Amino acid sequence: MTASVPEYVVGLDVGGTAMKGGLVTREGRVTALDGRPTGRENGPEAVVDAVRAYAGELADLGSSLFGGPPVAVGLAVPGIVTSTTAMYSANIGWRQVPAAAFVPPGLPARLGHDVRTGGLAESVFGAGKDVDDFLFLPIGTGIAGAVVLRGEPYGGANGWGGEIGHAAVWPAGEKCACGQIGCLETYASASAIGRRYETRTGRAATAKDVVGLAASGDPAAQEVFGEAVEALAISLASYVLTMDPSLIVIGGGLSEAGPALFDPLRERLAARLTFRDPPPLCPAALGVQAGMLGAALLGWQAVGAHDVGRDWSLDVLRGGEVP
Amino acid sequence: MTASVPEYVVGLDVGGTAMKGGLVTREGRVTALDGRPTGRENGPEAVVDAVRAYAGELADLGSSLFGGPPVAVGLAVPGIVTSTTAMYSANIGWRQVPAAAFVPPGLPARLGHDVRTGGLAESVFGAGKDVDDFLFLPIGTGIAGAVVLRGEPYGGANGWGGEIGHAAVWPAGEKCACGQIGCLETYASASAIGRRYETRTGRAATAKDVVGLAASGDPAAQEVFGEAVEALAISLASYVLTMDPSLIVIGGGLSEAGPALFDPLRERLAARLTFRDPPPLCPAALGVQAGMLGAALLGWQAVGAHDVGRDWSLDVLRGGEVP
Repeated sequence: MTASVPEYVVGLDVGGTAMKGGLVTREGRVTALDGRPTGRENGPEAVVDAVRAYAGELADLGSSLFGGPPVAVGLAVPGIVTSTTAMYSANIGWRQVPAAAFVPPGLPARLGHDVRTGGLAESVFGAGKDVDDFLFLPIGTGIAGAVVLRGEPYGGANGWGGEIGHAAVWPAGEKCACGQIGCLETYASASAIGRRYETRTGRAATAKDVVGLAASGDPAAQEVFGEAVEALAISLASYVLTMDPSLIVIGGGLSEAGPALFDPLRERLAARLTFRDPPPLCPAALGVQAGMLGAALLGWQAVGAHDVGRDWSLDVLRGGEVP
Repeated sequence: MTASVPEYVVGLDVGGTAMKGGLVTREGRVTALDGRPTGRENGPEAVVDAVRAYAGELADLGSSLFGGPPVAVGLAVPGIVTSTTAMYSANIGWRQVPAAAFVPPGLPARLGHDVRTGGLAESVFGAGKDVDDFLFLPIGTGIAGAVVLRGEPYGGANGWGGEIGHAAVWPAGEKCACGQIGCLETYASASAIGRRYETRTGRAATAKDVVGLAASGDPAAQEVFGEAVEALAISLASYVLTMDPSLIVIGGGLSEAGPALFDPLRERLAARLTFRDPPPLCPAALGVQAGMLGAALLGWQAVGAHDVGRDWSLDVLRGGEVP
């Protein structure tokens, strides 16, 4: 590759139903593409084929944009995952899929867990870039966290860590879809907020609607949103006492509520902690692209370039969009 | 020092009211001494003096036993601590005490947090020696944990981690002495079990008494001990979901209840986890000497001997006792 041809990787964020891809140069120029369905209804092998086909399309697009193939592909995938194997996903149904199966022949590939890969991007150049130890907690349809320790997402002994959404906040409370009682997720995920409002009022609402209704004085919305905030405060207080993070980074759709979420959450977290101060709470910096950008960092890691990303600014997200 | 003189360190476990010391050779021959009061009532400076005097006595005893001075002193101390400074202890009242202040002039010294130092000993040659990632949870007058990650105790961003005893298990429950509501410690510490039994029955009892009474069918004891076990199960389930440890090691006085504690705790922990198996639960291996033995390991680390202890067997505890 000559000096005039920029080096780049393909980053791919594979969710349960959709995947997002992008091309990311070593300097952090980002070309983000629209999502694509995974075709989960066709079974796990079809999803692997769909991912590989999409990775191939992205590589072809990169070749025409940049004049050469990508140096590697990084992929964020759900479930239990090592850097070389997608071990298991309840959501998609695959087991023991090697990284190479997700990419066209000959391309180096590296895998990461979806939430932890988002946490990696937040750690390297996002909201957590100035600290070593933080919690990245995206709140969307579900809630799972990336425990970032000394700058690296930590998945536990077997990659099952970060399931903060299924730790109980009210252990004699409501039953969660997972079968356990009183899980954080069953009170505080965006979908739970909508569902619990509908259960009380008979009126369908998104979490965003509930936040707006609460602000305008709707008592049921205030109650449901207040319980979500209290559940988050209980959960975060436990995390803070156990892990003493420098920072808590809240992401996902619910974080878009802004001060309507962060102000009461800060207050309630402080109220739950009497003998120590809470760490700062801040919104994620990378939004819905965190997974794809983290996947790109994994791509760079696949070829030994572990420092790539440390000098990227948040302007990477304005690099270039191919709709 | 000639080859015929064994190398040894002084290990000192400094608690709030008492300290325990020992002499530990490179090969793991242990001479454990009886406890000594810290004299906390005389103020923090007097405690530092008392620790230094005791370290000097231990060094003198070592010189007469082994024919030469110790190579270093390791100390486990409460509060917030780095390897070189005892930053703060609410219990004793000191602030910013350098390691050198705790030992006679000229001896290398290294500090560690009391619970994490016990966790270090359990990690290097105790109950956690075969795994990298575990929780060490001593349950005594209070409850605090050592989060051991990749073989090293982890204290968080600022050394405030491990306060699992003050994470809420019933967040609308009883008030804890710390001012928070529903802390694990207020239900499940050994002192809480005795106190809660006395509150219900008017009869004074230790946790050991309550465990015995529960086994013999006393309903109040069964209720109090059952709530302690359930509180522990809730707390451990949250830890497991968040941190995915390979093992949970329970220490402290309550762990001496044996199967009366471990059997129902295993059952209730499993019942709190629906989509994953719990890790094994086992008792600590080193008992009340864990802190002193971990402090001895810190002493070896002070002179760069980071591998000392890896080949020690649990027989170290039978090495030699000076009453």
